Amino acid sequence: MMINKLTIIGVGLIGGSLARALRKGGHVREVMGYGRNLAHLQEAVGLGVIDHAAVTLKEAVREADLVVVAVPVGSIPEILSELAPGLEDGTIVTDVGSVKVPVIKAAQATLGARFPFFVPGHPIAGTECSGVRASDVDLFRRRRVILTPEPETDAAAAARVRTMWQAVGAEVVTMAADRHDRILAASSHLPHMLAYALVEMMVRMDDHRAIFDNAAGGFRDFTRIASSDPVMWRDICLANREMLVTLLRQYRNDLGALAKAIEKGDGEALLELFARAKRARDTLLTDDKL
Amino acid sequence: MMINKLTIIGVGLIGGSLARALRKGGHVREVMGYGRNLAHLQEAVGLGVIDHAAVTLKEAVREADLVVVAVPVGSIPEILSELAPGLEDGTIVTDVGSVKVPVIKAAQATLGARFPFFVPGHPIAGTECSGVRASDVDLFRRRRVILTPEPETDAAAAARVRTMWQAVGAEVVTMAADRHDRILAASSHLPHMLAYALVEMMVRMDDHRAIFDNAAGGFRDFTRIASSDPVMWRDICLANREMLVTLLRQYRNDLGALAKAIEKGDGEALLELFARAKRARDTLLTDDKL
Repeated sequence: MMINKLTIIGVGLIGGSLARALRKGGHVREVMGYGRNLAHLQEAVGLGVIDHAAVTLKEAVREADLVVVAVPVGSIPEILSELAPGLEDGTIVTDVGSVKVPVIKAAQATLGARFPFFVPGHPIAGTECSGVRASDVDLFRRRRVILTPEPETDAAAAARVRTMWQAVGAEVVTMAADRHDRILAASSHLPHMLAYALVEMMVRMDDHRAIFDNAAGGFRDFTRIASSDPVMWRDICLANREMLVTLLRQYRNDLGALAKAIEKGDGEALLELFARAKRARDTLLTDDKL
Repeated sequence: MMINKLTIIGVGLIGGSLARALRKGGHVREVMGYGRNLAHLQEAVGLGVIDHAAVTLKEAVREADLVVVAVPVGSIPEILSELAPGLEDGTIVTDVGSVKVPVIKAAQATLGARFPFFVPGHPIAGTECSGVRASDVDLFRRRRVILTPEPETDAAAAARVRTMWQAVGAEVVTMAADRHDRILAASSHLPHMLAYALVEMMVRMDDHRAIFDNAAGGFRDFTRIASSDPVMWRDICLANREMLVTLLRQYRNDLGALAKAIEKGDGEALLELFARAKRARDTLLTDDKL
């Protein structure tokens, strides 16, 4: 038994899947859940994802070995500040937020002497679905988890969080928080913006029913991420604002150049661009990788 | 037996899959293939996708009931003009091009009195793969095929092409060519541009290996279409230039507004936009539809 008492703050897709996977592997004795929505917590108990639901954060973290904060990034500072007073010696806190620098700042500001026992983390997993009903025991299998410990982070605490993720099948890597935020802005945050903006533009078109009715698999794949949780993505946008805006601007410039090439009928430039992109995607990103 | 002799011009993913599917269903007696690349044609014969390869277009269409032109849109005018002299009475020609207005214009210009027996078509099917090796007997099953007949189009010819697509499991709809081009510009051509541009931008980044290495399923799905055939997409861009450029401009404007909202930290506007897009995608486009 690796974890005696695990506390999940925010029992949704990620928190719920982690609890299920740890339990299935026999890595946890007791799972306590906490969340803002009582009905969701009751559902999580009903589904056997958590053993009990706590009514207060103080109760939730009492005697916990490990607290996993799995709420949207914008709610993490408030949660950390509320749970800080109840933390006991030896309790490790980690999170699953998609942006790391602001979370670390919030943890520094609220956790005080307990900050070294906060291990910032981000599982690169998820689907466009959300909620505990979508939770899946295999969600992290062969997925990557990025930990972004600070110089002050306790090595044993970081090792424990690493072991937890490995126990549910993830590959764990470590990098600096700002590098994480820059990389994820490109590979995840920007694409989500592009998909949301595309679907929103389509909906405003006169003939939008026909557009959706005649869409092929490519459109389905391309827009899948526009079905992701809006609150989670609002929070990510705000938390990673600067990097995201920089990339959006750059992307707009690129699109402008592309539109010009199409307008001019510059087939050579188009062919070159498409071929370069195809080559990159085919070699750098194979579908069965990881 | 529905088709005595079928001629496929361009035995790639689409042409090859159609030949396979018709043959499997017992709808065709003989399949003749033609293409620019002899090695590809030999491969198609080797795979049993076509019975024979013709060396000239004249030979290819001789005594054919049905000729399917399945080459990139940019090559269709030349193919039509080359095959026109060899067409016999009663031979129906159809195509699978992703843009219809320019194809129809080319057919009008080259086929002369045989124009009524040209049935413009577009199967909304395909994958990011290309070539006869990727051809699949089930590619059109439960997929949509759009026919865009003109007022002059012979009704019996259109009906025969419709029956052919239905025989391989497709749902066939009919609409005006310009409406087709407008709809597909939005649901297919624009997303392909966005995916190509995104991957191309990533590749130019310093840390691009880490970006690709830490990409989640969303990025994979989002960029899958950037692995599509560059020649095919160059041709589509050029053929549907005007509509595509209009949409690209509009999308750039939308992205500019989105970047501003993020920069200002306007969480309310972001939440509204994301929620609207999610609602639209969830209701208008379910993943198991069609």
